[in-house]
Amino acid sequence: MTDRSKGGARVPASAKPAGDDLVASRRRFLTGGLAAAGGLAAAAGAARAAGDPAITELPDWTVYPGDGVDAAPYGMPSEFESHVVRRDVPWLTADPVSSVNFTPLHELDGIITPNGLCFERHHGGAAQVDPAEYRLMINGLVEKELVFTLEDLKRFPRENRVYFLECAANSGMEWRGAQLNGCQFTHGMIHNVMYTGVPLRLLLEEAGVKPNGKWILPEGADASGMTRSIPMEKAMDDCLVAFKMNGEALRPEQGYPVRLCVPGWEGNMWVKWMRRIEVGDQPWHHREETSKYTDLMDNGKARRFTWEMDAKSVITNPSPQAPITHGKGPTVITGVAWSGRGTIPRVDVTIDGGKNWYKARMSGPSLDKSMHRFYFEFDWDGTPLLLQSRAHDSTGYVQPTKEELRAVRGVNSIYHNNGIQTWYVNENGDAENVEIS
Amino acid sequence: MTDRSKGGARVPASAKPAGDDLVASRRRFLTGGLAAAGGLAAAAGAARAAGDPAITELPDWTVYPGDGVDAAPYGMPSEFESHVVRRDVPWLTADPVSSVNFTPLHELDGIITPNGLCFERHHGGAAQVDPAEYRLMINGLVEKELVFTLEDLKRFPRENRVYFLECAANSGMEWRGAQLNGCQFTHGMIHNVMYTGVPLRLLLEEAGVKPNGKWILPEGADASGMTRSIPMEKAMDDCLVAFKMNGEALRPEQGYPVRLCVPGWEGNMWVKWMRRIEVGDQPWHHREETSKYTDLMDNGKARRFTWEMDAKSVITNPSPQAPITHGKGPTVITGVAWSGRGTIPRVDVTIDGGKNWYKARMSGPSLDKSMHRFYFEFDWDGTPLLLQSRAHDSTGYVQPTKEELRAVRGVNSIYHNNGIQTWYVNENGDAENVEIS
Repeated sequence: MTDRSKGGARVPASAKPAGDDLVASRRRFLTGGLAAAGGLAAAAGAARAAGDPAITELPDWTVYPGDGVDAAPYGMPSEFESHVVRRDVPWLTADPVSSVNFTPLHELDGIITPNGLCFERHHGGAAQVDPAEYRLMINGLVEKELVFTLEDLKRFPRENRVYFLECAANSGMEWRGAQLNGCQFTHGMIHNVMYTGVPLRLLLEEAGVKPNGKWILPEGADASGMTRSIPMEKAMDDCLVAFKMNGEALRPEQGYPVRLCVPGWEGNMWVKWMRRIEVGDQPWHHREETSKYTDLMDNGKARRFTWEMDAKSVITNPSPQAPITHGKGPTVITGVAWSGRGTIPRVDVTIDGGKNWYKARMSGPSLDKSMHRFYFEFDWDGTPLLLQSRAHDSTGYVQPTKEELRAVRGVNSIYHNNGIQTWYVNENGDAENVEIS
Repeated sequence: MTDRSKGGARVPASAKPAGDDLVASRRRFLTGGLAAAGGLAAAAGAARAAGDPAITELPDWTVYPGDGVDAAPYGMPSEFESHVVRRDVPWLTADPVSSVNFTPLHELDGIITPNGLCFERHHGGAAQVDPAEYRLMINGLVEKELVFTLEDLKRFPRENRVYFLECAANSGMEWRGAQLNGCQFTHGMIHNVMYTGVPLRLLLEEAGVKPNGKWILPEGADASGMTRSIPMEKAMDDCLVAFKMNGEALRPEQGYPVRLCVPGWEGNMWVKWMRRIEVGDQPWHHREETSKYTDLMDNGKARRFTWEMDAKSVITNPSPQAPITHGKGPTVITGVAWSGRGTIPRVDVTIDGGKNWYKARMSGPSLDKSMHRFYFEFDWDGTPLLLQSRAHDSTGYVQPTKEELRAVRGVNSIYHNNGIQTWYVNENGDAENVEIS
């Protein structure tokens, strides 16, 4: 893994692809009966049928009954998928209790992240909370201070919504140049899950927020006691006190039994193992919102309250961990896009470093503050590629280049890097994290 | 488990609830500031705050750093969720290689079924297929016979769609009366997943279907060699050749590496480990579509081609495996509904065995041929309940009672029982599978 996690090459001008002539007609691909893929399938099929033992011989799984997998109370992936795992970057976080791992985006498709592969970042280890001992307190500027058990929470009306959760530091190592060689490492601090929970508004209304209650401070029950200040408008809008993810209970490392969802806002505000919500009249400016999770600018001042995650996208295939292995011909480019401000009606893709942009095809439900999946199918002629994607969100915001971001923000921060990612793909199909200038 | 899996009581008339007066004003609950829950939360909060060690003492998980769960390459549920598992019914299937297990619907929420908990039914064990040796052949009445590798399939344009998959025999043990005591057993042969795959139409167009090619026969690579006849219209409409579920590769017991999705149609047509698709001019009438998966009527004739799953619903909480444990007061009833013909715009709920029906609240995306989630919140006064739900689908079809079904179909079949389910809840909150007449 270590050899895959370091990138950083710059592409010589001579290696750049020639441009327009690389792109097959997408219209042909999508509406014209798949003529391009036709050549592929027919050729491959003919060659294989001639003497492919996978066709002509009976495999064991056809001859003998399979394992009694029906007895598995909780199923697991195939042994052939053992490479599809969360990974960390050893040199990035030394301390096992203040650490992070990354979602293998290059192995996934669609928009749902399976729970076992959701990245996680914690600041005091993953607490193992006994749900029978779980309590949630609401105190501070409220009419009635309240304490809820898990069962109490489940007596309130629930909602089900799909949201992405992105760490503010996702792509943070890339501010000073291409560094980590794989979208798992550059963009893998994100997951996208269907949550079930109680609208936070209902609990706050239950307690009765006093007129001067303008902020909340959710607090985690883990050893880090994570806290963040959140304005009351957001708390009363779309926040959820969630206890399920993708249908089942939250995973321990995702805050079991209860976490806060703060849709579209940076991940560490989604307080895990949430045990208390204090209502106050001003932000607290605690450690994780001053010395951390603020963006240091070139002039030495810091941006604060940078909660919303700007629109962003990344091509997941091909990418450094997922090269093109099939050679020339019909090729599927795919990736994901998201915005903390709404939906993603459009993603553009370029294969020549931005000379020509093509509108990608979106597939799957388009949900508010959720991940979206895009595809771009083309006929690869084997020339090296410079792949980029560019998200447009429903507010009209367009994902910027890294250079545009640096011009405004400098390179002192590790947070909120939503710049356009470039993968260089050589004539063998191998991909590398690069920047072009 | 065995003691939970047998039910069948009939409710004496005297145990039936009184009717309208049980139902709190739902309007109050949803728009009136949760006055009902207010009493609950305030009372519970005050009692606990007085001397609840879960509030006043620091638990270990707050004092000591948590486990280094960040190192877990593929995460698992909390140890406190070890009861949330697929289960079988020992007396129902004797042979471990011709078996079925059930989704724990009463432990889930939202609309996504986690992959580890998706029920599975197999006829020759769960094949463990090596993806490198996987091949898909298309032959029969086509212009070009073709063989695809897994990589070949991934070069075609993909789609992402959420579909329910229900076994035709789901609720099959209930035709002759209330039998299995828990929605996991009565309704748990269903799951709901986001699939990623290639439209089957694209592959058939690639091979070129001859004018007399009117049917397809997908065939599994497992030891049962499962086959089903599917009309060409359906094959060309919305079928997917799927390789991902909920973002990651299909699970082995769900057909890894490739299964067919036949949206809205009965589960065993969704051929797993699919290795071949034959194109023919008429249905094959193979074993699994004649001696099995046809519905024997009272007159000794069998219904055939009963592919579409009719609209259906079930209350998952409370239910025999998930009693009401919190006593009187605000109570959330929830369940799931689905239709093989479209969406579910409406579900009705009754708590008095059908004297009064109330429109349930739907929450979560409403997607074609997908599971839908409904809720009904009310103030329980402790009187016994007779709970039922009734689905309406987007074609106007309304879920029938079991008696209405039996009047038309008799009780010889185990398939396509979509009758209304009744749970009797006694004054202690315990629930039982019953029928009312």
